Amino acid sequence: MTRKLADCRVAVAGLGLIGASLCMDLTRSHLCREVRGISRSAATIARAIDLGVVDQGTTSLLTGVTGADIVILAAPVRIAMRQLREIGPQLKKKAVVVDVGSTSSEVVEIMEALPPGVEPIATHPMAGKETSGFDAAEAGLFSNATWVLTPLDRTSETAVGLLEELVKAVGAHPIRMEALKHDRVVAAISHLPFLVSSALVQTAATLGERDPEVWDLAAGGFRDTSRVAASQASMFLDILMTNKENIGACLDLFTDHIQALRALIEGDEEDRLVEILSQNRNVRRNWQARYEARRRPAI
Amino acid sequence: MTRKLADCRVAVAGLGLIGASLCMDLTRSHLCREVRGISRSAATIARAIDLGVVDQGTTSLLTGVTGADIVILAAPVRIAMRQLREIGPQLKKKAVVVDVGSTSSEVVEIMEALPPGVEPIATHPMAGKETSGFDAAEAGLFSNATWVLTPLDRTSETAVGLLEELVKAVGAHPIRMEALKHDRVVAAISHLPFLVSSALVQTAATLGERDPEVWDLAAGGFRDTSRVAASQASMFLDILMTNKENIGACLDLFTDHIQALRALIEGDEEDRLVEILSQNRNVRRNWQARYEARRRPAI
Repeated sequence: MTRKLADCRVAVAGLGLIGASLCMDLTRSHLCREVRGISRSAATIARAIDLGVVDQGTTSLLTGVTGADIVILAAPVRIAMRQLREIGPQLKKKAVVVDVGSTSSEVVEIMEALPPGVEPIATHPMAGKETSGFDAAEAGLFSNATWVLTPLDRTSETAVGLLEELVKAVGAHPIRMEALKHDRVVAAISHLPFLVSSALVQTAATLGERDPEVWDLAAGGFRDTSRVAASQASMFLDILMTNKENIGACLDLFTDHIQALRALIEGDEEDRLVEILSQNRNVRRNWQARYEARRRPAI
Repeated sequence: MTRKLADCRVAVAGLGLIGASLCMDLTRSHLCREVRGISRSAATIARAIDLGVVDQGTTSLLTGVTGADIVILAAPVRIAMRQLREIGPQLKKKAVVVDVGSTSSEVVEIMEALPPGVEPIATHPMAGKETSGFDAAEAGLFSNATWVLTPLDRTSETAVGLLEELVKAVGAHPIRMEALKHDRVVAAISHLPFLVSSALVQTAATLGERDPEVWDLAAGGFRDTSRVAASQASMFLDILMTNKENIGACLDLFTDHIQALRALIEGDEEDRLVEILSQNRNVRRNWQARYEARRRPAI
């Protein structure tokens, strides 16, 4: 039996960058029967209704999820985990429950404990920017982004199919992945770059105490390597605290690579240094070509 | 006695990203009497003349600099250093000789040995991108960029004034700085970010051997933090080898900051972790606001 997105009531808890952007796509393209926004802030709800971002809204999580066919928890991952524990008894039978957090293993553990009949899927849209909150939301944020789905063993194929319909409807590409692999991968391509970016800013700031000219000379290279350091700290705190082991493993690898580069510089091993730098350059260029091809809208 | 850019013959040695972009601005806006391009490649010279990027060109460094009022060495910094040693006897009296390399201390040392009467200035335009070569050149590359000038004690104020006229004529903001400070500062905001960016790519590649999905999930955060890793390895080799000490000092600072962040994560010291991440976030946001204001064209 298939279920259709057009027949679904969708509840989105958390109207920040991800949650509100998703609501925009769902309401403006009339993709589902109803979009409910859930936020701690009554003012945000009022603005979301005014702007047509949601059809209706509430500050009560339990009221909001009642009767919803799809529940999307779009708060930072540890808040979503707490909400998962609260909403279980309130959920409709066959309700599809998803998070959009950046780590999955701990989420999946909590999802296992949801009442039978509920259909949990951990998910992660690979879309975002360094700005956050309702005001940073934009229609089309997920266009051509990869969206990772991690269904549980208990999750029905019908439920996964329904969520894939939603993901594709907002322009993203669904890919299925187990939680452990997902968390290993995002540690390398997102969590480590964030920590490194933050430490780069801190290094410039430390030097800037002596040489304030660092801020006059910093240009495009610094701008790009440091961009993610401007991300919301509280969101990244949740991510870091729920993916410690993988982040530690990535930091070990990264530190080894940095130390090896340093040893080559200090030892004047120029040929080997150019070889490694060129290799990394080629890897980056190949990925960039592939990334751009993926994000180019199909004609 | 003032000298005017409009009366000057300008020779640019090296028609890569920086050299050819500079020639474009000089010729297209008729800023000087003549623009000469010097390149090892006769084909590049021919293309540069055809496209109107230079007025004339030669593959001979010594021929090219003969009679020039301003000589700009736009090759990677160690090639420019070798050229500085070669061209001395050939230079016109009062010729202003500049490099556009990314490190200055070693350049200044070699400039000290130029014949008396020649006017050397080490310089560094804070403009660039990860692509390189003649084909990457573009008019307006220096628009609103900071351009560091490091005159020597022997350099006359007239010569510095002439070069400042050139820098402003292509839209950049000249700022004077001593070589040691310049090299300390660029280690923090350019050379360290490059090494870190390259090591981030290498870390993803190492993990990618086990989990090739890293390349599907990598998105905007990875794209930006890894962009400078796509820079030309040979150009960065010269930079790294001529600024070892400052880069080592920056790597020490950076490693301390990364280790401290790691210890806070592993020790669950969440309050302190959020405090540092927020502080880095604010530093980055403040710099970004200032950087954007500087790059916004004056009305």
